[in-house]
Amino acid sequence: MSRLSGFPEYLPAERAVEQSVLDHLRSTFELHGFASVETRAVEPMDVLLRKGEIDKEVYLLRRLHAEETDDHAGLGLHFDLTVPFARYVVENAGELDFPFRRYQVQKVWRGERPQQGRFREFTQADIDIVGRDTLPAHFDVEIAQVMAEALGGLPIPGAVLQVSNRKILEGFYLGLGVADPTAVMQVVDKLDKLPGERITALLVEQGLGAAQAEACLALAAICTPDTSFVAQVQALGVDHPMLAEGLDELAGLVAAVRTPPNVTVQADLRIARGLDYYTGTVFETRLVGHEHLGSVCSGGRYEQLARDNRSTYPGVGISLGVSRLLTPLFAGGLTASRSVPSVVLVALADEEDRAAATDTAARLRARGIATEVAPSAAKFGKQIRHAERRGIPFVWFGSADGDQVKDIRSGEQVTADADTWSPDHRDLRPQVISKETPQ
Amino acid sequence: MSRLSGFPEYLPAERAVEQSVLDHLRSTFELHGFASVETRAVEPMDVLLRKGEIDKEVYLLRRLHAEETDDHAGLGLHFDLTVPFARYVVENAGELDFPFRRYQVQKVWRGERPQQGRFREFTQADIDIVGRDTLPAHFDVEIAQVMAEALGGLPIPGAVLQVSNRKILEGFYLGLGVADPTAVMQVVDKLDKLPGERITALLVEQGLGAAQAEACLALAAICTPDTSFVAQVQALGVDHPMLAEGLDELAGLVAAVRTPPNVTVQADLRIARGLDYYTGTVFETRLVGHEHLGSVCSGGRYEQLARDNRSTYPGVGISLGVSRLLTPLFAGGLTASRSVPSVVLVALADEEDRAAATDTAARLRARGIATEVAPSAAKFGKQIRHAERRGIPFVWFGSADGDQVKDIRSGEQVTADADTWSPDHRDLRPQVISKETPQ
Repeated sequence: MSRLSGFPEYLPAERAVEQSVLDHLRSTFELHGFASVETRAVEPMDVLLRKGEIDKEVYLLRRLHAEETDDHAGLGLHFDLTVPFARYVVENAGELDFPFRRYQVQKVWRGERPQQGRFREFTQADIDIVGRDTLPAHFDVEIAQVMAEALGGLPIPGAVLQVSNRKILEGFYLGLGVADPTAVMQVVDKLDKLPGERITALLVEQGLGAAQAEACLALAAICTPDTSFVAQVQALGVDHPMLAEGLDELAGLVAAVRTPPNVTVQADLRIARGLDYYTGTVFETRLVGHEHLGSVCSGGRYEQLARDNRSTYPGVGISLGVSRLLTPLFAGGLTASRSVPSVVLVALADEEDRAAATDTAARLRARGIATEVAPSAAKFGKQIRHAERRGIPFVWFGSADGDQVKDIRSGEQVTADADTWSPDHRDLRPQVISKETPQ
Repeated sequence: MSRLSGFPEYLPAERAVEQSVLDHLRSTFELHGFASVETRAVEPMDVLLRKGEIDKEVYLLRRLHAEETDDHAGLGLHFDLTVPFARYVVENAGELDFPFRRYQVQKVWRGERPQQGRFREFTQADIDIVGRDTLPAHFDVEIAQVMAEALGGLPIPGAVLQVSNRKILEGFYLGLGVADPTAVMQVVDKLDKLPGERITALLVEQGLGAAQAEACLALAAICTPDTSFVAQVQALGVDHPMLAEGLDELAGLVAAVRTPPNVTVQADLRIARGLDYYTGTVFETRLVGHEHLGSVCSGGRYEQLARDNRSTYPGVGISLGVSRLLTPLFAGGLTASRSVPSVVLVALADEEDRAAATDTAARLRARGIATEVAPSAAKFGKQIRHAERRGIPFVWFGSADGDQVKDIRSGEQVTADADTWSPDHRDLRPQVISKETPQ
């Protein structure tokens, strides 16, 4: 029996960490009024391939005993949550209220060759706001604000939310007199992988003059934690209405987003997201100490996320790669304080006492305290070890003279009543801890 | 753009109902110490087909541009959660503590022709307890108890948990002198679909005498809400050690399970789950008023859920068909009180006030009150209608003279402070309601 490469599975303690991450994301998104949506795992291939570029990565389905006229032909597993959401919006436009804000946390599949931090099956958490015909720029601010708060509550060393705006890049290139600004953007987007001289050479190959190419690189080098990027861009001496509009939008965003302590926002004009069809704001996110992973959370504004016969649906959104984020954290020793939800194990001196122990457990559960009864009667030392192996903090001993509960971490044992005793609130759920940290 | 038959998708209000159902299931399972596990969506075909019988239903995967030596060949989507869990237990046996109790809530896929209540993609919620080498019978009681509590908290008219035990059936048939008890069980299992005379005829075809066939039908007719089934079985005058063991186990279970008000437990000796490899307790569940759906929640005991070179892993579990349960409820008008999580909409008289409104919203969210700010400045009547369409109960009006909040259901408007005001706790989350019921 061998594991399948690219299809990670978690042990219960790791899954408990993932659950606490997903709970935090859901809570943050819902506090901001985002409604949950799930779409089916499959889409017709023509929907999946509409965006282009990623056809090699799709998993097709067929039934084991497919017939000639199989109505399952042409279905594939979704590779992201944006394409299915755009289809969902159009299909349900008559039933949705716009602007519509939704979050979507689901698995996606890509038939790629796996490599570090890349999976064939992984969980994404997306938020998008979609309007009918129009969607004001303040929604871009809101998406950045919500994701900054979401990142702020995660068990990560820190995150840098890098923001740029396609209008700045495209307007600047147009102001420079470049003929094909999209082609330039896709070249400049390779700055992560290629040295500056190589980028310059590629731009010159595209017909840019040396001064133009240099100006493009100078723009991409601008990165500020505040709105001072505006003056730096203006100092490059290029003028275009689209550039001015982009600078306004990005400055508005950087000025408005309020970040939690471990998250910073940067205007970083190297960020272009070259191959995606964004039309304004673009986002990427680096995890502090894990910059080699690339962006763990990306997105931006589409002037046309979807359209039907009557309307276009502009959208702005961002997608967090939950599996991608968790993998280095697990490798670094992140785990849960216990592998089970149980706060209490009710010990059993004799199998005859099972009914009484079950009753004690029911009384604790009725007040929200997760409880299990010992699997079999045994010496108390054995039962304490049973709890220890799972990280269950308390063992309960029933007795005709009054019950007792023992905190097996401290050894402290006190008289207790199952109708009134409560653990410290931090013990109610497994805590996210680092293996290096003593509990 | 047409919907895909068999792949249901929910509108936001229906999804809110599904979320509240899944939240209740998770909470119940965790209170009983069940740990969450998720397995990958795909399994090698040899794992999927090990159980036999269902090969026609499996979706196979292939990559769009598959190569000759494709390492994705032979992968299929899982069609249940038991087969992947058995594989997970063996693969991780060294890391798990036994008895291991887990819950698993995931989508599964079956390439069947869709029909009412049957889907190609649907959500199941499974609980299982698995031991190493042994697993005492009290765990069967626990599985029934946990699922009865889970069903008790769902927005359903009622449920009947029907319990039987294979040892009773097999022991009874052996005591009758039947040569192939499994074949008899599979015939009797068709009582749901075929009339009694037809079953008798089929049994006689198998070589049973008329009296034997009649005894088999008499056994299958026994159904009691308490342990009185034991005397009824004994009155049939058949004797076998396996029968006695099964009667003990089932009587113990029926006597021990404590049910919530809308759930009843029945010993129903017609329940056999003929094609599955259960070896003791078996479960089915009928939804009151929706009996035509068949069983919405089924399971039982496997003496050998899985095995490796060193051990066998006996298990007992039950699987709730969440999608199957929700479909008739949605058709009957079940919905949520609102389509968004938001409790409060902060109104906006002027776009200039957005920063102040955003601040008000942040103060409400900091105390767990889901809040959104109006998408654009507009007359208050329009903003109230915006809230009404979504079912948001409160609209907040900022003012230099002191803020006010209006309950748009009652029309009541009061002075309020965003740092102290709280809604009724029932308004904090969308409520599950019936469309027929006035809110």
